[in-house]
Amino acid sequence: MYVVKASGEREEFRPEKLMRSLIRAGASRELAAQIAGEVAREIWQGITTREILRIALEKLRERGEEALMLRYDLKRSIMNLGPSGYPFEKFIAVLLKKYGFKTRTNVVLEGKCVSQEVDVVAERDGLTYMVECKFHNRGGIKTDLKVAMYTYARFLDLKRYFDRAWLICNTKCTLEAIRYCKCVGIRNTSWAYPRGRWSLESLIERKGLYPVTILRSLDEEEKKLALSAGIVTVEDVVTGGVETLLSAGIGRRAAVAAVREGNLISKLSKSC
Amino acid sequence: MYVVKASGEREEFRPEKLMRSLIRAGASRELAAQIAGEVAREIWQGITTREILRIALEKLRERGEEALMLRYDLKRSIMNLGPSGYPFEKFIAVLLKKYGFKTRTNVVLEGKCVSQEVDVVAERDGLTYMVECKFHNRGGIKTDLKVAMYTYARFLDLKRYFDRAWLICNTKCTLEAIRYCKCVGIRNTSWAYPRGRWSLESLIERKGLYPVTILRSLDEEEKKLALSAGIVTVEDVVTGGVETLLSAGIGRRAAVAAVREGNLISKLSKSC
Repeated sequence: MYVVKASGEREEFRPEKLMRSLIRAGASRELAAQIAGEVAREIWQGITTREILRIALEKLRERGEEALMLRYDLKRSIMNLGPSGYPFEKFIAVLLKKYGFKTRTNVVLEGKCVSQEVDVVAERDGLTYMVECKFHNRGGIKTDLKVAMYTYARFLDLKRYFDRAWLICNTKCTLEAIRYCKCVGIRNTSWAYPRGRWSLESLIERKGLYPVTILRSLDEEEKKLALSAGIVTVEDVVTGGVETLLSAGIGRRAAVAAVREGNLISKLSKSC
Repeated sequence: MYVVKASGEREEFRPEKLMRSLIRAGASRELAAQIAGEVAREIWQGITTREILRIALEKLRERGEEALMLRYDLKRSIMNLGPSGYPFEKFIAVLLKKYGFKTRTNVVLEGKCVSQEVDVVAERDGLTYMVECKFHNRGGIKTDLKVAMYTYARFLDLKRYFDRAWLICNTKCTLEAIRYCKCVGIRNTSWAYPRGRWSLESLIERKGLYPVTILRSLDEEEKKLALSAGIVTVEDVVTGGVETLLSAGIGRRAAVAAVREGNLISKLSKSC
């Protein structure tokens, strides 16, 4: 039984993979196994991974695991930070702060050759990083070698300000891009890379820092309003409360629902 | 009276500019002045440069200056080498040969970090150039800093094979990209740059080397057939003759017309 990924590639359906991602989202081993088993019985040849996600989410919903369901939807919610890359940069800056970095966003610096815009400047332990954020708002696109190469060239142009370059993407990188980054010494954080605790989704999940776009109580339009008012994370919603959402132009009913949902997600992410 | 450029920018209509480009395409000073004068009387506020081109071409056609008209259409014919960048790379390789370079296209080389594809390798006077061809198939897009930066990073990765990097684009470059290239020592040839004899269009016009897509006797489909058969220049059509076009799958009538038109263009380009 093969499934079709967002990139259009085919791959054998592997229930372990679905289980792992459910466990990563906070499901118990038992729950994850149950759901993966049920999904395995219901899928068909050529089903898309998006459709599998939808079925798995439905099963979580049926079991009343609302918050878990929301967290499971992390990848898509990060895509929905677009279309521009700016909210993603802001999100990354907040994430890095959680890990003890001092950050500044959208800094313009005079390079050796030209003036350059740096998405995030991050400092920790006496090291200053030039962080290039690469945001794609569709699945199935990998960040490629060219991005890694211009990041390196930008770093060379700005070398007097920085100790290291760091490329952070919301998608996967191509193998070539990963190899290149290693070779020239660019730190690379992207979807599912590096494997384990330091991939983008692990960094996010370990701090329970979810993008505002994960909230189902806000529609597309309301999410856009929130983003343009600088409300980028669920934490911003919980801390700012209903008033902040109202002043962003969101209606009271949606604002109240969003704060309630935000609290639910925050509680769950602290409990696991 | 302002005109709207392909990029969407506005600019004052300047008849000298139209005259210069007509002269560059081979018109006498008198003819160019006449046409520019007539065009100036017929245009309107907010007219697009494309529309101005159409009017000027029409005036050339009325005067029986068919070949000149064809040559005038150079920029668009290069755009039509797309959608893929490969015919443009091939065209550039042929162009560089005309200037005494030894060339190879699409060479894969093992860099210090990763394996890299070089569009054109060009050698002359004991120097080897890594040529990066950047092709856009729409007007109004400038080649930007990122392209210049990844070209430089690619050059650094392949440094042991090459003496210099060379970026050749069919569009204009941004000012930043030009400044960056100068600063890191990348040779840059693009539309209207460097000013005078060494811009892309001057290099092409001085050798009378026109892309096959300039021929009006072939329709879109026939041009595609020609390109995929490796017939990239008008010279290929003239040298190969009707037979070559037939074996590319083009009908006899169109093939005969194309060869006749190709001969016309070649004669004109030699006479001026």
